[in-house]
Amino acid sequence: MNEQLLNRPRASHLMEREGVDGLLAATFENVYYLSNVWMENFFVLPRQTQGFAIVARDKLDRPIVVASIGEVANYSESAVSGCGLITYGQFYRFVNEQAQLSTGETTVKERVIDHADRSRSNVVEALAGGLEEAGLTSGTVAYDERGLFIETFAALKQRLPDVNLIPGYQLFRRIRAVKTAEEQRRLEAVLRVNEGAMAAAMRVARPGVTEQDMIEEFERYVVSRGAKVMFTQIAFGPRGGQGYVMKRNAVLSEGEVIRFDVGCMLDGYNTDIARNFSIGEPDERCIRYFDATVAGIDAAAAAMRPGATAADVFHAAVAAVRANGIPHFGRTHVGHGIGLEVYDIPLLAPADSTPIEDGMVVQIETPYYELGWAGIQPEDTVVATPSGGKNLTALSRKFEVVRRDS
Amino acid sequence: MNEQLLNRPRASHLMEREGVDGLLAATFENVYYLSNVWMENFFVLPRQTQGFAIVARDKLDRPIVVASIGEVANYSESAVSGCGLITYGQFYRFVNEQAQLSTGETTVKERVIDHADRSRSNVVEALAGGLEEAGLTSGTVAYDERGLFIETFAALKQRLPDVNLIPGYQLFRRIRAVKTAEEQRRLEAVLRVNEGAMAAAMRVARPGVTEQDMIEEFERYVVSRGAKVMFTQIAFGPRGGQGYVMKRNAVLSEGEVIRFDVGCMLDGYNTDIARNFSIGEPDERCIRYFDATVAGIDAAAAAMRPGATAADVFHAAVAAVRANGIPHFGRTHVGHGIGLEVYDIPLLAPADSTPIEDGMVVQIETPYYELGWAGIQPEDTVVATPSGGKNLTALSRKFEVVRRDS
Repeated sequence: MNEQLLNRPRASHLMEREGVDGLLAATFENVYYLSNVWMENFFVLPRQTQGFAIVARDKLDRPIVVASIGEVANYSESAVSGCGLITYGQFYRFVNEQAQLSTGETTVKERVIDHADRSRSNVVEALAGGLEEAGLTSGTVAYDERGLFIETFAALKQRLPDVNLIPGYQLFRRIRAVKTAEEQRRLEAVLRVNEGAMAAAMRVARPGVTEQDMIEEFERYVVSRGAKVMFTQIAFGPRGGQGYVMKRNAVLSEGEVIRFDVGCMLDGYNTDIARNFSIGEPDERCIRYFDATVAGIDAAAAAMRPGATAADVFHAAVAAVRANGIPHFGRTHVGHGIGLEVYDIPLLAPADSTPIEDGMVVQIETPYYELGWAGIQPEDTVVATPSGGKNLTALSRKFEVVRRDS
Repeated sequence: MNEQLLNRPRASHLMEREGVDGLLAATFENVYYLSNVWMENFFVLPRQTQGFAIVARDKLDRPIVVASIGEVANYSESAVSGCGLITYGQFYRFVNEQAQLSTGETTVKERVIDHADRSRSNVVEALAGGLEEAGLTSGTVAYDERGLFIETFAALKQRLPDVNLIPGYQLFRRIRAVKTAEEQRRLEAVLRVNEGAMAAAMRVARPGVTEQDMIEEFERYVVSRGAKVMFTQIAFGPRGGQGYVMKRNAVLSEGEVIRFDVGCMLDGYNTDIARNFSIGEPDERCIRYFDATVAGIDAAAAAMRPGATAADVFHAAVAAVRANGIPHFGRTHVGHGIGLEVYDIPLLAPADSTPIEDGMVVQIETPYYELGWAGIQPEDTVVATPSGGKNLTALSRKFEVVRRDS
């Protein structure tokens, strides 16, 4: 039984409120969210992959996947029950007449060989077929405007002139902003992988190690858990204060601040976690400043409850860091939602008035970057509850000083 | 000294022929190609990252990067000499007044703190500034239509009404289709990583191993060489004949066909390699069919010379596979360019009349997929030369049978 990720009551409510009759997903995350079909090609060929999922508001449990005919096996194995499929293109497969075919192979045989004529000639015909099957040849359809190619969009408008296609990227994000129990379970599972990978990288940390050595150790752990490497920033000393760079050959010194800002993906869900460590005693200011930034996270987490806005959470964080030891602290944001995208909504920033809702999951981060010194940065995963945020991160809340004989 | 990837004579020629005065890159691959600035955020936040490189045809050695202010350190370290930078947004960094700043830190300080007022208020203003600096406020600019957000495009058109913005994704691909010596060097380097990872995965292959075990071994090798995991399809027996699936818990049996179709990225350049193996004696047809498909690759490789078209290469491959033991063989294409995208142009397919040019690098693949049996698939990397294609792959050209005591 494949998981239904879509939060149907929320989707129905928001679609109705915005006058949207259907959704047309055209990105990895939204196709997966609607159908449970994982189209790996979105990662391999991000500028060439055209795959879709369509749902009508009155049939949210019956998505229709529109995909290249190469996706049939994947659809057969993964799609939620009740999910339809319309393919485009042709593919050469042959059959061993002596073999007993599995269910998946039988589906592939029917779609790719026996009824190859039912596969549409091109992506626009397949999309039109999907919208017809969903009953969406008129009305308003919110589409993923950062995924659908402009030429496909233009041809589809011409093919189905009565459909009102409106940009839907932000609506998808609003639907996904509150996480179901299954999504929260996945977010915790990938968080455990991330935390384990940080511990693995720290086990090889000693004076003389390079950033690249630790990055590779982190990534070996991630792939060893079947997860996807997303970003691995591990920077030493002042390099942690200046921003992302490609060259990672810096060598660790005793007492130097190690800054992690790392993320990975498992079952579609992401992490984005930061921490500081040192091997041997650091500058005492590191510990003071780290504690101040953690006070900011705690204040923001406490504010993560219905009744507050994203901006309220922002102001709580900045005020607490300032009051707890970094009076000159400033930030443009102190975090963001996390889920199928590394940045889901809301953005915890002064201009974001999104109301906090029970079940929103956010990263809270209060980094302090000082050129010529270091990047001090804790970042935690917090789920909003009626009584304030619950921190899901299992890491120490202290600047960790590792004492190692070597 | 940072590498210039752009093939300037080719770019100049094609731009002139198509009446294009400037290029506006808006994707990872094209920004990197024009400027050598690696914007990791394109991988982390593919639907949210807005970063650009602009060049005018008469100043191809002076790209201008347009980026979020968070990219300053990266620009300072990586950009080709003569590259400009226009940022948008604000960022909080502080300075340790006691420290001696490095060159990179000094650049960050100047851009982010001392002259923060020069950072543009938003991405449209920064893009307009970049086009102005490049002298492209009128004339024709080919832009990356699969990267630029539609709302940014609309606002930019309004901001600079005299620029004729035309879709440029295909022009970028045509420019990149012939690889310079440096690009060929990178393609060979990442090929060695891919080959080593296949050997590592085969070292753990034995009856009882799962697909996932071998996938993880492959990926550990890739990340241990500082490369990026792109796709790791390792499938056993009939699963290799049905297409990509997400579940990878199949267990290997003695004599079963192992199908690799795998790729990784190093320094921006990709691989896409396939091979078959077995542990213990396979069905004799495997070896016969593998040899037939290799004959197809050899025939296609021989045809990879100026004077031929992509379609000619396709027909040579299909005819050779049919003549060498699989008379019912068929394919929609037998390969594609490889480079900064996993599929560069040309596509080796009957409808692609692209002339083959000296220095084009392609993957040639002649897979035979049989439901209920196996996926037989060799795939090699071949560079076109005046005397025919040169195969860059160092793997065996045989179906490899491993005999193992266990």
